[in-house]
Amino acid sequence: MSIVADPHDIKKDKILESAYNRFLHYGYSKTTMNEIAGDVSMSKALLYYYFPDKSQLYIAVMRKLSTDYLKKLQAGVFSNLEEAFIFQINTQHDFIVTNYNFFDFFRLNEQNLPDDIWQIIGEIHQAEIELLKAAIIKEADAGIIRPVENPDAIADLLLDALHGVRVRSASQKKVFFPGKDQLEEIHEKRLLLVNIFVRGLMN
Amino acid sequence: MSIVADPHDIKKDKILESAYNRFLHYGYSKTTMNEIAGDVSMSKALLYYYFPDKSQLYIAVMRKLSTDYLKKLQAGVFSNLEEAFIFQINTQHDFIVTNYNFFDFFRLNEQNLPDDIWQIIGEIHQAEIELLKAAIIKEADAGIIRPVENPDAIADLLLDALHGVRVRSASQKKVFFPGKDQLEEIHEKRLLLVNIFVRGLMN
Repeated sequence: MSIVADPHDIKKDKILESAYNRFLHYGYSKTTMNEIAGDVSMSKALLYYYFPDKSQLYIAVMRKLSTDYLKKLQAGVFSNLEEAFIFQINTQHDFIVTNYNFFDFFRLNEQNLPDDIWQIIGEIHQAEIELLKAAIIKEADAGIIRPVENPDAIADLLLDALHGVRVRSASQKKVFFPGKDQLEEIHEKRLLLVNIFVRGLMN
Repeated sequence: MSIVADPHDIKKDKILESAYNRFLHYGYSKTTMNEIAGDVSMSKALLYYYFPDKSQLYIAVMRKLSTDYLKKLQAGVFSNLEEAFIFQINTQHDFIVTNYNFFDFFRLNEQNLPDDIWQIIGEIHQAEIELLKAAIIKEADAGIIRPVENPDAIADLLLDALHGVRVRSASQKKVFFPGKDQLEEIHEKRLLLVNIFVRGLMN
């Protein structure tokens, strides 16, 4: 690996940064490839050379965001299981609040997300499992919680349960991606669930 | 109220029964109004007089099933909180396993269920909350679990969490209505979640 950055990578990074800012401030649908080409002083043809269409560009930004998110997750320090769970919930909550408009792509394509996005979601999910699993094993070894046969399954169960926590609308319909005004309420409910869940694992 | 049944009601009941059997054995999409009219020896015109279209007929059957389900729920007898939660999960599991093919309508219309169906789901949800709430209050009064400020919210939280328990497919996509082969695994996971959750509420 050379320490001199590849000029292609520098250009790509500039495109990703401009795209992120536009997606975040104007949303996916209101952002055009023309505007991004303008931001980075590049011909549209060259932009399309790097990213064949807007959705590919979106996926690349999403991948970068996900890498940052995973780094934050992995840098977490906590002294017990409940803190580990709370850290995971808070990190996710902050990530979604900060990038809320970026996710309008998810709302627009709720029923038909590209496979690449599902792959990124899968990677994040796996990293979350690893984090929680390590915390569960540590706590079980220390005798603070009951011995756990399958820490993976317990971590997965909690993540599923947290995922189920939604704010019900008047019509009972639940949407995959919550409204911005619902995030706080969901966050509170998840903290309560974690509190009960951790107590339930105790000796 | 007369004890002599209204002939209209008798006819309606016969239609609902035939429709239920056909929806259950052949699914919603493969059932025609013609076949149902044939089953009950009725002209198609008369059938349409009672039910203006197939989806209205489906909703009426769904309403009847839901009434039966609620009766089963309300007849439940249990001696503690975990039993109450398990009873609720088992009753729902049996209901879905028994009527699995009937719900192909849900799969077909996953993203666009009629409001009437959402209303029925809402009624069932409310009845489930009431059942669990009563069990929580009883157990808290008896000092078996910690005092609970808002038993409604705790019941709702558990139902949300249970709802989140899904079987992940290889692609990470989660479907609203699970495959028949996934029901047992989901059921097992829900029982585990209830076990942890109830322990977490204990003193």
